[in-house]
Amino acid sequence: MSTLSTDQLAQLEQQAIELPSWAFGNSGTRFKVFGTPGTPRDPFEKIADAAQVHKYTALAPTVALHIPWDKVDDYGVLRKHAEDLGVGLGTINSNTFQDDAYKFGALTHEDAGVRRKAIDHHLECIDIMHATGSRDLKIWLAEGSNYPGQADMRGRQDRLQESLQEIYARLGDEQRLVLEYKFFEPAFYHTDVPDWGTSYAQVAALGDKAKVCLDTGHHAPGTNIEFIVMQLLRLGKLGSFDFNSRFYADDDLIVGAADPFQLFRIIVEVVRGGGFNSPEVAFMLDQCHNIEDKIPGQIRSVLNVQEMTARALVLDHDALREAQLSGDVLAANAVFMDAFYTDVRPALAEWRESRGLPADPMAAYAASGYQQQIAADRVGGTQAGWGA
Amino acid sequence: MSTLSTDQLAQLEQQAIELPSWAFGNSGTRFKVFGTPGTPRDPFEKIADAAQVHKYTALAPTVALHIPWDKVDDYGVLRKHAEDLGVGLGTINSNTFQDDAYKFGALTHEDAGVRRKAIDHHLECIDIMHATGSRDLKIWLAEGSNYPGQADMRGRQDRLQESLQEIYARLGDEQRLVLEYKFFEPAFYHTDVPDWGTSYAQVAALGDKAKVCLDTGHHAPGTNIEFIVMQLLRLGKLGSFDFNSRFYADDDLIVGAADPFQLFRIIVEVVRGGGFNSPEVAFMLDQCHNIEDKIPGQIRSVLNVQEMTARALVLDHDALREAQLSGDVLAANAVFMDAFYTDVRPALAEWRESRGLPADPMAAYAASGYQQQIAADRVGGTQAGWGA
Amino acid sequence: MSTLSTDQLAQLEQQAIELPSWAFGNSGTRFKVFGTPGTPRDPFEKIADAAQVHKYTALAPTVALHIPWDKVDDYGVLRKHAEDLGVGLGTINSNTFQDDAYKFGALTHEDAGVRRKAIDHHLECIDIMHATGSRDLKIWLAEGSNYPGQADMRGRQDRLQESLQEIYARLGDEQRLVLEYKFFEPAFYHTDVPDWGTSYAQVAALGDKAKVCLDTGHHAPGTNIEFIVMQLLRLGKLGSFDFNSRFYADDDLIVGAADPFQLFRIIVEVVRGGGFNSPEVAFMLDQCHNIEDKIPGQIRSVLNVQEMTARALVLDHDALREAQLSGDVLAANAVFMDAFYTDVRPALAEWRESRGLPADPMAAYAASGYQQQIAADRVGGTQAGWGA
Amino acid sequence: MSTLSTDQLAQLEQQAIELPSWAFGNSGTRFKVFGTPGTPRDPFEKIADAAQVHKYTALAPTVALHIPWDKVDDYGVLRKHAEDLGVGLGTINSNTFQDDAYKFGALTHEDAGVRRKAIDHHLECIDIMHATGSRDLKIWLAEGSNYPGQADMRGRQDRLQESLQEIYARLGDEQRLVLEYKFFEPAFYHTDVPDWGTSYAQVAALGDKAKVCLDTGHHAPGTNIEFIVMQLLRLGKLGSFDFNSRFYADDDLIVGAADPFQLFRIIVEVVRGGGFNSPEVAFMLDQCHNIEDKIPGQIRSVLNVQEMTARALVLDHDALREAQLSGDVLAANAVFMDAFYTDVRPALAEWRESRGLPADPMAAYAASGYQQQIAADRVGGTQAGWGA
Repeated sequence: MSTLSTDQLAQLEQQAIELPSWAFGNSGTRFKVFGTPGTPRDPFEKIADAAQVHKYTALAPTVALHIPWDKVDDYGVLRKHAEDLGVGLGTINSNTFQDDAYKFGALTHEDAGVRRKAIDHHLECIDIMHATGSRDLKIWLAEGSNYPGQADMRGRQDRLQESLQEIYARLGDEQRLVLEYKFFEPAFYHTDVPDWGTSYAQVAALGDKAKVCLDTGHHAPGTNIEFIVMQLLRLGKLGSFDFNSRFYADDDLIVGAADPFQLFRIIVEVVRGGGFNSPEVAFMLDQCHNIEDKIPGQIRSVLNVQEMTARALVLDHDALREAQLSGDVLAANAVFMDAFYTDVRPALAEWRESRGLPADPMAAYAASGYQQQIAADRVGGTQAGWGA
Repeated sequence: MSTLSTDQLAQLEQQAIELPSWAFGNSGTRFKVFGTPGTPRDPFEKIADAAQVHKYTALAPTVALHIPWDKVDDYGVLRKHAEDLGVGLGTINSNTFQDDAYKFGALTHEDAGVRRKAIDHHLECIDIMHATGSRDLKIWLAEGSNYPGQADMRGRQDRLQESLQEIYARLGDEQRLVLEYKFFEPAFYHTDVPDWGTSYAQVAALGDKAKVCLDTGHHAPGTNIEFIVMQLLRLGKLGSFDFNSRFYADDDLIVGAADPFQLFRIIVEVVRGGGFNSPEVAFMLDQCHNIEDKIPGQIRSVLNVQEMTARALVLDHDALREAQLSGDVLAANAVFMDAFYTDVRPALAEWRESRGLPADPMAAYAASGYQQQIAADRVGGTQAGWGA
Repeated sequence: MSTLSTDQLAQLEQQAIELPSWAFGNSGTRFKVFGTPGTPRDPFEKIADAAQVHKYTALAPTVALHIPWDKVDDYGVLRKHAEDLGVGLGTINSNTFQDDAYKFGALTHEDAGVRRKAIDHHLECIDIMHATGSRDLKIWLAEGSNYPGQADMRGRQDRLQESLQEIYARLGDEQRLVLEYKFFEPAFYHTDVPDWGTSYAQVAALGDKAKVCLDTGHHAPGTNIEFIVMQLLRLGKLGSFDFNSRFYADDDLIVGAADPFQLFRIIVEVVRGGGFNSPEVAFMLDQCHNIEDKIPGQIRSVLNVQEMTARALVLDHDALREAQLSGDVLAANAVFMDAFYTDVRPALAEWRESRGLPADPMAAYAASGYQQQIAADRVGGTQAGWGA
Repeated sequence: MSTLSTDQLAQLEQQAIELPSWAFGNSGTRFKVFGTPGTPRDPFEKIADAAQVHKYTALAPTVALHIPWDKVDDYGVLRKHAEDLGVGLGTINSNTFQDDAYKFGALTHEDAGVRRKAIDHHLECIDIMHATGSRDLKIWLAEGSNYPGQADMRGRQDRLQESLQEIYARLGDEQRLVLEYKFFEPAFYHTDVPDWGTSYAQVAALGDKAKVCLDTGHHAPGTNIEFIVMQLLRLGKLGSFDFNSRFYADDDLIVGAADPFQLFRIIVEVVRGGGFNSPEVAFMLDQCHNIEDKIPGQIRSVLNVQEMTARALVLDHDALREAQLSGDVLAANAVFMDAFYTDVRPALAEWRESRGLPADPMAAYAASGYQQQIAADRVGGTQAGWGA
């Protein structure tokens, strides 16, 4: 008897985790961005790298783009390039934090001209979505203020809603807007969309095609994230995940690296609320590989999500429910922990092989020589990073 | 030229801060509850003490009751007692955390019988509200779980809404329900109403007479509370404040004692959002005087709120707005800080005297002999605390 | 090939985890202490319950006492009672937080008389240690202040050192003093021993027989506890652990329940630093079973420590070291995670059976009827709690 | 009678706050560094700007340098340049976080060659100190790891001590080494000097010329910083302050901007412990003016420190002590708060004028035209930032 049932494997087979193109470029802290040999110089190379992750795991069929970092002249060509490599283009991420005009805000700015510029950027993103075939426009706003008194928080909130309405109105019938929230950074006093409640209030006022994006690293210390997952699913407003992990702030570490049990609890709640393998809820990564290799960093990440999903799927819901109903705290917790502590890795390795995938995707990638190849090939040019 | 204008003083004159009856009884930590001479033994003595706070400050015209701690045979008698002492009865607080039946929940409990009992308790509270003439039913729920897996968070959320709907339906036309949220404690893994978003979603589903209660000590570390004040006012759902202060968790210290600048920012946002002296937003204290004297602790608290309100009122909104619009961060912050650093205390002392109040209410109370009197009089019986 | 080697099992066989007597009595929050049938009424019954934990696990050979909660007329009788049940008496815990005299401090109090009383209490504890054969005097101090200005922090620190010196001087040659630190609670502004640095500075000034006690729930949010473990071992000052777990504050939940990966990292560092099965470092539990059954709660806890220790022991240090030296971040982390994700439970169950212990101690205890027996027997009297 | 006594003003006259050269260059977050007209292009221009701060406040007689950002061919020329502008060169700050070699550590690195390079950099800094006449070598280490298992924390701690010993040995008789600690960032799992305890243990092992540097933004949420100030002064190891303020992480905002009352408490403890105007304790700023103007940002900062020091000096220690000794919590807190709420600004303005300084340094600087001048003059070249 395997650890994982046929039904569970069938569910795992459908799992898809979108990769962020920017994870393949350089990233760092305000103190230093380290470069590495082989780092992509353009969106085409980023997608080539992303395709490697899918090749070895069959878990990452799409790649999210970030505009303007991934701007190209012809998105049809980029789309074809991706499809030739076995992947598709996914969510379009807007950027309103790197233009000098946005120093004091973008969609919330006091100045109508700056808001116009920021709205137009989003409309351009929607145009790109049509070209790339993307469904989701993901909006993360860096907006806020650093000093008490600096900004009129209420006015900004109202202007945010106005700006979002104009963007929302441009969405196609099958397109969605997902609004991310973040506790702090880069603003250090107030952030315009700091919590799920604000994102929820903003998107609820827009309409059915607007949802909340939950980044697992964007909460106050101690926040029970799986509770928020539950609540957003209950309210019909969980649109997508940005997975990563953190010890302190928005560390953007590999998902599952900091608190694997938290990741387990989150995925259990996704499954319980109907968000797993649902078209409603997109699984995405949003990470920075500041010091570790990027492609294997992404492979490790999707495997972490897959393994934790497998643990969530083996949870014995009948036994759990019985213990809950009887008020047996220790028994309920034991059922829960038993799933978490189940070592699903051998069964997953075996299953991968049965599907023509490597049992150990990390080892297979390392043995492939791809990393050496790109290090040798990608000489000259400018390595991609958060600025391009 | 006084620090405070005639108009500002007129606004301050209307300010009213409700006192919690339980602040006059003993409280403490799980480690120890210290008793003190003169502590009230029943609701009548609590109200007598609360009336002292109003006598010396003219700031605290009403007293909130906690059921069952403040249960009496005849609320008409209690109301008359209060009115004779110059105060009124205010918000009724329900209690679903001290009965053995509520070990695993009350309004959210898996068992319909326990939910019935908890709902009935709230219906009884509404009956009491009719007798006391109270407008608000305040609900703080201690419900949650201590271990992952122990509880079905989603089911509890749904049952909470059902239970609240039944309670809400019983409200009189002029009555309101305010739902408090709290980050954690006494539950240590999940809390059923942990954040403003959850409280907002729950009360929005009830109707116009349901609002959110914001306790200033009930947030995750680092939370920007004035942002939440702004947002709830914007959404028309800020019903009341429970003021207190904290360094770590729900410390329930004297309001303004831990971070006076935060209190200033909160009140500035209340004023900016139309919540000051508005019938929509009730100002209440919810504190524990574990080691300090209780009556002067309450006097100190209402004075802190009054002084900080005065600072908020002297904020030069025109200058602030001009600096904000010009993107002059330092100028905007300077206008803001100037109000905070203004020493309004001499002007307030003078104004108090002009109204026949003591310039220094703390000193006047200390000199009154009341504390010595109750210490001498209240001998025998059981000192009131959180159990009675 | 078993998951655990003979050598690893031999190390696990030596593992000993001390139980706190007070875990078998009632505990709760400031809001409510729930009682349960069968709760001990005196120290003898607490020890009988503790012996059950050892009976089913062979992991808990000693029981820590708390004075005055566990005061008896004749400690020789209590010691004999314990030995007859197969366990010994362990660490003596002092209590300077429940006497009215200690409202504003004990060992740090401004008043010499109060300090005298507190010092004498510790001297009495040392006398008890001689009677019980205990090695360690554990001091956790509830001392601090709630309001800025209330206390002279510097003077308190100096007085603390003076008081400790007098206590230290009374220790027998084979006895030790371990000083616990705690971030906050029950004091809410400043705590006199709030961090490991303070505890270290205080005990370093005392001498070799004074060490630091690390309670895993007593840190600021985000603190890297395993780093402190490393540092204290490096400095030769780690005396003991109080194991428990937390999501928010000092929640005192079952060890390993909140963040099992953190527990793993802590034990890895204990092993790496020579603190495992060392006479220098005592493993103890300090938990509250507010809502779950107490005896199985303790069984679950020692099993959690045992299982996590087994995972720490299977860590491939050679492979880890190689990856660290090569700067291969992902490989090093993979070796580390592989140990954590190894399911040691089947091997441990088998090994238990080979030693005449139940494979599943939780099930064996549940089947024993002991719980029902004590519920039936222990009728009348006063259930033990934090006051007795 | 003025708010400030002659004696208090005499103490304030001696106050000196060192400015960081890098505060005048551009800084930002990992998301964006905004440039501004007039930003210095080299160390000479930075010092010219710093001299403006001193010109208008008489509070900032020295400027700290950061090597290699402030490397020049001839430090004698730079020193002369500073002296001509009325300021001196101060603390030398080393930098081991921007060279590619330091990706996995510097003074703690596994590789002896990298450690050699990092030690040599510090020896070069000491050479520079001789040329500049600087007393203090300040070491902040960015070292740590991002993933559990990545690093051998214990080995790193030992190597850190070895490296520091070699650096310490090179110090001149009148020179000091101050070791800064930081909770996290840029490392996100473990940091090699994360807390005051570690810094204290490291410098205590070096000798009398090694001290701790306390950066007010480098602590875990909720940390009582004034307690650490007290403790380090008590242990004779507080060497210097890096002042700034934070709401969340190491936000590096203007000192006093986030929690002015905390700054007050810190300075009260400095005064109480003998650290004010003591050669032992250097006051420095370490801030980033990401969005506000830099020179006025620094002027605002030193004024904030001065104003808060004045409030600390008016604290009535006799009344405070009396209230503390009588256990009157509210009275003690009232004395404390009274000092904080005292508006010292008018008295300070008057005093400034009496010394030939502008009453309002912010206004005087704004009116001077310096900002417009440098914006016009400093065209071309590369604006200084954290890389240069």
